Amino acid sequence: MQGKLFLLPNLLDETAISDFPPSVNMVVTQIQGLIAESEKSARRYLRRFFSHDLMTQMPLRLLNEHTEKSELEQLLDPMMQGETWGLISDAGLPCIADPGSDLVFLAHQKGIFIETFVGPCSIIMALQLSGFSGQHFTFHGYLPKDSNQLNAKLKELEKLPGTQIWIEAPYRSPKMLETLKAVLNPTTLLCIASSLSTPEQKVVTKMISQWKNSSLGKEPAIFLISGTIPLIKNNL
Amino acid sequence: MQGKLFLLPNLLDETAISDFPPSVNMVVTQIQGLIAESEKSARRYLRRFFSHDLMTQMPLRLLNEHTEKSELEQLLDPMMQGETWGLISDAGLPCIADPGSDLVFLAHQKGIFIETFVGPCSIIMALQLSGFSGQHFTFHGYLPKDSNQLNAKLKELEKLPGTQIWIEAPYRSPKMLETLKAVLNPTTLLCIASSLSTPEQKVVTKMISQWKNSSLGKEPAIFLISGTIPLIKNNL
Repeated sequence: MQGKLFLLPNLLDETAISDFPPSVNMVVTQIQGLIAESEKSARRYLRRFFSHDLMTQMPLRLLNEHTEKSELEQLLDPMMQGETWGLISDAGLPCIADPGSDLVFLAHQKGIFIETFVGPCSIIMALQLSGFSGQHFTFHGYLPKDSNQLNAKLKELEKLPGTQIWIEAPYRSPKMLETLKAVLNPTTLLCIASSLSTPEQKVVTKMISQWKNSSLGKEPAIFLISGTIPLIKNNL
Repeated sequence: MQGKLFLLPNLLDETAISDFPPSVNMVVTQIQGLIAESEKSARRYLRRFFSHDLMTQMPLRLLNEHTEKSELEQLLDPMMQGETWGLISDAGLPCIADPGSDLVFLAHQKGIFIETFVGPCSIIMALQLSGFSGQHFTFHGYLPKDSNQLNAKLKELEKLPGTQIWIEAPYRSPKMLETLKAVLNPTTLLCIASSLSTPEQKVVTKMISQWKNSSLGKEPAIFLISGTIPLIKNNL
């Protein structure tokens, strides 16, 4: 009798504790073990739901960029024995711009019951707040680091229909904005959603030409450009 | 002094009331009016948070597929007077596969403060549960209805990198599955996530050839195909 794998949301910011719906509180207390990106983030997560003793006793396993495909099967062993485990990422939703999808794929094949729970998704929050189309959008993860490849990729994304979304490491955010100002068409609409769900949250949508005198700090940021021009753009 | 526009989540299913995080409960009671797809869904939404009297007194405005672009400015009038209004869609998150993004775009230009709140997003839940890549994915909304155009579109999507996601009207779900079985490559991975967040929720991921003897009811469903073959596909 196979067990269960619960895809549990994590907060985007430690202060946003009221972003956990009651359904998450109810379900976390059922888990018998937790798969996380690091032991530190696992313990921090569990502390919100369990006493110190239960928190330290909870079995943990790691799934991160160092995990080999060959190790995934082992991660599912407790669930093959009928146990219920949780999967979290360091922030937001597991499997979305974060590890987890290969594990879920394998869990499907093994007949493990998989369930997910409502929580914060920074990509979707940024898309809602941008004012860009949520009827047709693509998330690209990280764009190439090499500057020639990045420039070519940006020129390609600018021509695509719908909303194009990507992320960048916080320390590279300022450079990304400078590149966008240099490479994109002056009339392309760019939205930058930074420090989402923190007190410093900021979402700005304007044309590249209007970004000229703006800069961006080393903040976690989501970048969005709109290929399909909103009909009301003329009002800008 | 401009007011505020709150993008409020709605439930995917009426029974899933514990999917509202406390942050939503706190913020809904601050609104002075609500923009919704229909009056019926607005009243049903408000009933969860307000007394009968307050619910019936709440000012409502409609934003749906019949709303002209020229009417959007009027919708923002109360916020230009300093009021705080909410925006909901019939299910899930406003602006995501639902109306709202043009209104948010215009609100940005008018300097209205815009905030969003955590809630259920069926596209993201389906993507998490599929086991397909959440590092690179595209949501296409509805695909063409015309069968020649649909077939051509599916052949095109099958060649794209990352996960391709679309929706279909529930009464057309059975026909969509039949089309996919006829048109797609036998080794293409198809996930169908149906009746999400209801007691009938079902998520099945397998190759087209393995869908041969399966059918689908007239259920709300999200369709996902994977262009990048997971390394563990060989285990299927």
